[in-house]
Amino acid sequence: MKRRQFLHAAGMVTASLGAALAGTGASRAQTAAEGAPGKAEPKPVVWRLVSDFPEALDTPRAGVEALANTLTAITDGAFTVNAASQPQKTQKQPASALDAVREGKAEIAYTSTAFYADRDPVFGVGGGMPFGPNARQFSAWLLDRGGLDLLNDAYRSHGVLALPGGNTGAITGGWFKQEIAGVEGLAGKRVGVTGTGAALLARFGALPQPIPPQDLAAALTAGRIDIAQWTGPHDDERLGLNKGAPFYYYPGWQGGLQFSFIIARDAWDALSAPHRAALTAAAARAHDTVQARYDALNAAAIRRLVALGTKLRPTPQAMMSQLYTANQALTAEIADTNPAFRTLSDSVKIFSTEAYLWWQVAEYTYDNFMIRVRAQD
Amino acid sequence: MKRRQFLHAAGMVTASLGAALAGTGASRAQTAAEGAPGKAEPKPVVWRLVSDFPEALDTPRAGVEALANTLTAITDGAFTVNAASQPQKTQKQPASALDAVREGKAEIAYTSTAFYADRDPVFGVGGGMPFGPNARQFSAWLLDRGGLDLLNDAYRSHGVLALPGGNTGAITGGWFKQEIAGVEGLAGKRVGVTGTGAALLARFGALPQPIPPQDLAAALTAGRIDIAQWTGPHDDERLGLNKGAPFYYYPGWQGGLQFSFIIARDAWDALSAPHRAALTAAAARAHDTVQARYDALNAAAIRRLVALGTKLRPTPQAMMSQLYTANQALTAEIADTNPAFRTLSDSVKIFSTEAYLWWQVAEYTYDNFMIRVRAQD
Repeated sequence: MKRRQFLHAAGMVTASLGAALAGTGASRAQTAAEGAPGKAEPKPVVWRLVSDFPEALDTPRAGVEALANTLTAITDGAFTVNAASQPQKTQKQPASALDAVREGKAEIAYTSTAFYADRDPVFGVGGGMPFGPNARQFSAWLLDRGGLDLLNDAYRSHGVLALPGGNTGAITGGWFKQEIAGVEGLAGKRVGVTGTGAALLARFGALPQPIPPQDLAAALTAGRIDIAQWTGPHDDERLGLNKGAPFYYYPGWQGGLQFSFIIARDAWDALSAPHRAALTAAAARAHDTVQARYDALNAAAIRRLVALGTKLRPTPQAMMSQLYTANQALTAEIADTNPAFRTLSDSVKIFSTEAYLWWQVAEYTYDNFMIRVRAQD
Repeated sequence: MKRRQFLHAAGMVTASLGAALAGTGASRAQTAAEGAPGKAEPKPVVWRLVSDFPEALDTPRAGVEALANTLTAITDGAFTVNAASQPQKTQKQPASALDAVREGKAEIAYTSTAFYADRDPVFGVGGGMPFGPNARQFSAWLLDRGGLDLLNDAYRSHGVLALPGGNTGAITGGWFKQEIAGVEGLAGKRVGVTGTGAALLARFGALPQPIPPQDLAAALTAGRIDIAQWTGPHDDERLGLNKGAPFYYYPGWQGGLQFSFIIARDAWDALSAPHRAALTAAAARAHDTVQARYDALNAAAIRRLVALGTKLRPTPQAMMSQLYTANQALTAEIADTNPAFRTLSDSVKIFSTEAYLWWQVAEYTYDNFMIRVRAQD
């Protein structure tokens, strides 16, 4: 579907749902029923969707649109989501969409569970984990190695379940006001970072600051933080992070930030089987849409950022190794007191080791050849 | 959804559809209508699905199951596919499913259009192309760079359109009876290979043989061919190729073999808008399922193959470079006489160059670190 059609359809959804929620107008399905006497259509299901991503980020917005438009189209308007509510606009905390679902204020949230690792470390696993598998491997673990079932077992006590909703791909190390020679340079630095990476950096004396993504650029520019981390060149450029710091480190220490649709279990259980299947398939469309969008737009953005003066710097390998070792220790400590986390993190790690063994055979060597030969063209 | 549920649901689909096709039984939707007097349900839509993949390959079979089960579930049985017909069982040619759709014998085919590059080179582009982008980048081109729209414009003259249905990931160079030092070793060799790679190898004097995948192992064992190429360790082991030759070369010269659902345009046009959306979303599920399955199962298979005695050999870098140069020449020659092919291949190449420029920043360097550190664990 073309982008313009997406946006047009999304506009229609919002308008009709606004009326339906306010109780002032008939939905499309109700109108159809009125037009066909004797045929009693069931009342349309309308879900409230909240998102932790700011409006400026068109990549996650495309994920919401893909879900909303697909769901509306395949159910002919019988099951829709209303994405009007964006909790982060009025809140100072970086993420609150999961809480809105748990408190019954919305049926579905679009977020990365990584943002909720401080509530329960199992959420960190679902967000991709530092030094976890890359994006394609994480999808393989979720969909083919029972990872999604394991996660949803763990999320049950929180009253929610997840459907995969896209991945950023390997993230960058972020924006630094000053160059850094190694982990020593993190001590005392204020870092705008949300999620599982915050605890890891704190091990080296960094001071993580809970700042919503849309406020990172201002904090960086004003000197309230020294380092800002989000995902990669396209998002980061949209947030204006390049205007706040010149040094951009690569790679980061996560193979991808996994996005999810988080659903209230009671709302899920109340759905008909066809609506559950429709929601799952619509989430798959969103999963593909978001990954494709990051892979397409990051490629264009990195070239632009360098042209605008961003100074790309490789993350020192010794720093990567020290972060890796610290992350192993951190993971082991959490696993010692949290059996659900242990089950999940062991499962990811076992698969990741196997997956990377294969990766280095065909996939990595093909990429290696292509990177070299493209550079020569 | 768990694998057992998939298979169970697929069995139910086949049974009820068999009866529907034979005109002997009522479909689920019809039964529902009879149970609700006064409510006239529309007749269910039943499509015939043909596949070019043999039964032995559980990866593409999982793609068909994901499509069929998702479609049945979200339409509550109002739109189903009958996957009983497998044309390759009775035909000697490697691929014929596209022809079945064009001849009106089926509404939908599951295949890789690469197998039809000899009919029209534009089909070769849709299958992934030698030295094309890797699987994630190809998805990005299809879904975010207008690639799928471009392909479907080109396929219009053939009366079909495509939906993406999975990707193998970077393929291997295949199974060789004897070691090879470079492209010189290809001269006079009989190669069991289907698709765009055949014309490329023929440039170096190789003799491509059109052999269906399920017959490759017997041909290799009996010495009727010297080299056999299919996709990667899991499929290749299922086909028994490792029993026919000891040397397994990596990487191959394609970033992934793209699978597609090929749909008759007249059948597509006759669908309701919700059914078109349902089919598109079901294909997205299949796309994710197949990629995840290859990424999970190849990882396990490569370890097993090496334990069974397979001798992994790196494809000589000079051979890769010579194949690359020959492929550029071949592509330029086709483009000179085929404007539709030129439009497509230029679009892929422009994006691929940009995508690999970004890839070498975060994604490749992250994989590089993970491969090294995992090997040390």
